[in-house]
Amino acid sequence: MRHKAIIAGVGMTHFGKHMELGLKAIGAEAVRLAIADAGVGLEDLQAAFVGNAAAGLVTGQESIRGQVILRSLGLGKIPVVNVENACASGSTAFHQAAAMVTAGAYDVVLALGVEKLYCEDRKKSFAAFSGAVDVELLQAFMESLQKSAAAGGASAGAAGAGEKRSMFMDIYAAVARAHMQRYGTTAEQFAMVSAKNSFHGSMNPRAQFRESLTVEQVLAAPMIAEPLTRPMCSPIGDGAAAVVLVSEAKARQLGITRPVRVVSTVLVSGWDHAPDEDGAGEVSSRQAYDEAGVAPTDFSLVELHDASAPGEILAYEYLGLCPKGDGGRLVQDGVTKLGGRQPVNTSGGLLRKGHPVGATGVAQIVELTEQLQGRSGPRQVPGARLGLAQNGGGNIGVDVAAMCVSVLQV
Amino acid sequence: MRHKAIIAGVGMTHFGKHMELGLKAIGAEAVRLAIADAGVGLEDLQAAFVGNAAAGLVTGQESIRGQVILRSLGLGKIPVVNVENACASGSTAFHQAAAMVTAGAYDVVLALGVEKLYCEDRKKSFAAFSGAVDVELLQAFMESLQKSAAAGGASAGAAGAGEKRSMFMDIYAAVARAHMQRYGTTAEQFAMVSAKNSFHGSMNPRAQFRESLTVEQVLAAPMIAEPLTRPMCSPIGDGAAAVVLVSEAKARQLGITRPVRVVSTVLVSGWDHAPDEDGAGEVSSRQAYDEAGVAPTDFSLVELHDASAPGEILAYEYLGLCPKGDGGRLVQDGVTKLGGRQPVNTSGGLLRKGHPVGATGVAQIVELTEQLQGRSGPRQVPGARLGLAQNGGGNIGVDVAAMCVSVLQV
Repeated sequence: MRHKAIIAGVGMTHFGKHMELGLKAIGAEAVRLAIADAGVGLEDLQAAFVGNAAAGLVTGQESIRGQVILRSLGLGKIPVVNVENACASGSTAFHQAAAMVTAGAYDVVLALGVEKLYCEDRKKSFAAFSGAVDVELLQAFMESLQKSAAAGGASAGAAGAGEKRSMFMDIYAAVARAHMQRYGTTAEQFAMVSAKNSFHGSMNPRAQFRESLTVEQVLAAPMIAEPLTRPMCSPIGDGAAAVVLVSEAKARQLGITRPVRVVSTVLVSGWDHAPDEDGAGEVSSRQAYDEAGVAPTDFSLVELHDASAPGEILAYEYLGLCPKGDGGRLVQDGVTKLGGRQPVNTSGGLLRKGHPVGATGVAQIVELTEQLQGRSGPRQVPGARLGLAQNGGGNIGVDVAAMCVSVLQV
Repeated sequence: MRHKAIIAGVGMTHFGKHMELGLKAIGAEAVRLAIADAGVGLEDLQAAFVGNAAAGLVTGQESIRGQVILRSLGLGKIPVVNVENACASGSTAFHQAAAMVTAGAYDVVLALGVEKLYCEDRKKSFAAFSGAVDVELLQAFMESLQKSAAAGGASAGAAGAGEKRSMFMDIYAAVARAHMQRYGTTAEQFAMVSAKNSFHGSMNPRAQFRESLTVEQVLAAPMIAEPLTRPMCSPIGDGAAAVVLVSEAKARQLGITRPVRVVSTVLVSGWDHAPDEDGAGEVSSRQAYDEAGVAPTDFSLVELHDASAPGEILAYEYLGLCPKGDGGRLVQDGVTKLGGRQPVNTSGGLLRKGHPVGATGVAQIVELTEQLQGRSGPRQVPGARLGLAQNGGGNIGVDVAAMCVSVLQV
């Protein structure tokens, strides 16, 4: 399939803790910024795809979140599709928006990702994550973790719904320990991911955390779930990101001379494969590279789903940026740092820019677009021309529930 | 846009109270029935669009409902997009699935609508509806209702979140009273809608209620919100419905000789229009008729959103089945009863077949498809060739949040 969608404009809010702002205000700000960037008016939008994961459980605003946000801007009538795929809700909204432009259904489409996680009751924010897994499997997983912790004396205490962290960090910690055992990956290498992304995030005014951390500081931080210290875990946060996608005809009409094109976007679901078999990450990225006619080494930069520091290292491998088991060395060799051969998460990533769940997938597209347009200031990747976005969401046992990979080219 | 999707197979569960079945089991059964009906295997499905409104708030299963259901059948890998639009979640899933087939993105796509509302704590089931409106507006509306009830002595007690009925019935009751005042519509006419749909539902083995009620029985039933008695309100329920949509090439390959075609499908959002101005119902249906090249009088049968009995009468009018204000007379004259000129809700409608929220929009497509294929048994509309489905969801003040209208033709 030849994709035809062009990114005409992008916008995002500051990511972080915004107790004074509700879902509407956060979402509306990103939309305003994106349409201004695109040079279109609200009245030009013909459809909207809105990704949000947790508003129902955190704020009670379920079901029609997109309409409520757009109405606060005075926008109605257009089709609004509210989509959910846990942490991949934003990329799913982007994926559908791009597909509908390619289909010729619309000339101007909005993809909005938005999340409001901070609330008075922090436990509610973390509990919202428990809806992003098979709720029956979650119970079994938590019981097995507790048993193995009791047997081995490890500090792998399980965080159930209502605890003060997401249970996803327990899953990531278990995966990290397995990677260390099998490939010799070290806690220092995980810390290098966090340090690198903190360096990138220090140059991003919209990042939740601006402090640049050393590897030593990351290692010395409080332990969340062995071997993950706090800066190796993405924070909860509030924020929104929006993208205006247009057809080729509309791009010409807008006078876009150097368009950022969506050359492929692939969404897959996880399945029950053996641990050693290729999973959603490998399959989705290979398909995206085939559609785009590119190799993983071709990318000028990559925004990937570093919900935890080990998550970034795993993604290097399943995206084919390095062979299996070499992820730790890739970051250690500086390849993925700004100035390296293939910078990863120049935005600061989920770890430092922040991870307002439903917004994340769209925010990755915002970062890539600005980089491909050469307007990323001190964190600009010189000559960026091909970008990769990867956003995963939820868990169904051995794999993520949803994985979305998109390739942008200028 | 020339639509290209063809309905290859449909399936739905019995609608009703299924305390012994969870979301997975209910959803999986509808999928099994639909693929068997289509003559395809699970492995033929290339993508799935899954509509669900309340699982997050009722069962805790948020975000990745589609993947969890499909995995229980052994299906992974394919893109799964979880969509939400309150009571129009199912039609939104169908709309997107049809659009993606028209786009040429897939040859075989599943649209699934599924809901599990019954649970041990009935208040939780009703509270789930409060996420389907602007949660800030809801508060204001409830306060105004309470004030007017206190002033006028009417029995328009407001049901807030946690009450034993949905606040939507208070909205419908207010609208019904206004219609009575303005057009002389009577409580008997509302009762005729319920009686008619109960007659239709008595012939539908998958309906939640099979009892055929007289107008007198409907009027004598307990009052829920003046003038709505219990049979004038759709019940909560559990259920799922699924449709397999295919491309023209795939339909030929499957040997479908008399295809049911999706000739138009239109999704719009409500907006802040004046009470007398056309709203989402008028705009969406006119657009759908234009796309399909048909007039409202052309339809052999109609499945519409009778969440309440007055809701059906309002829909007659905004869908153009009769002039404004004549809805009460349309049902009174027997036009919309089986055997009449234009039967409406032969399935029993939301009132009697039931209204498992996310499933409803897809179940309407199931009914129309079976009717157009001449396999509806005792409730068959003779010679049915053109069907209309209308499904609305949520509320944003003066209008529904989402309205989806689709036209099927054989």
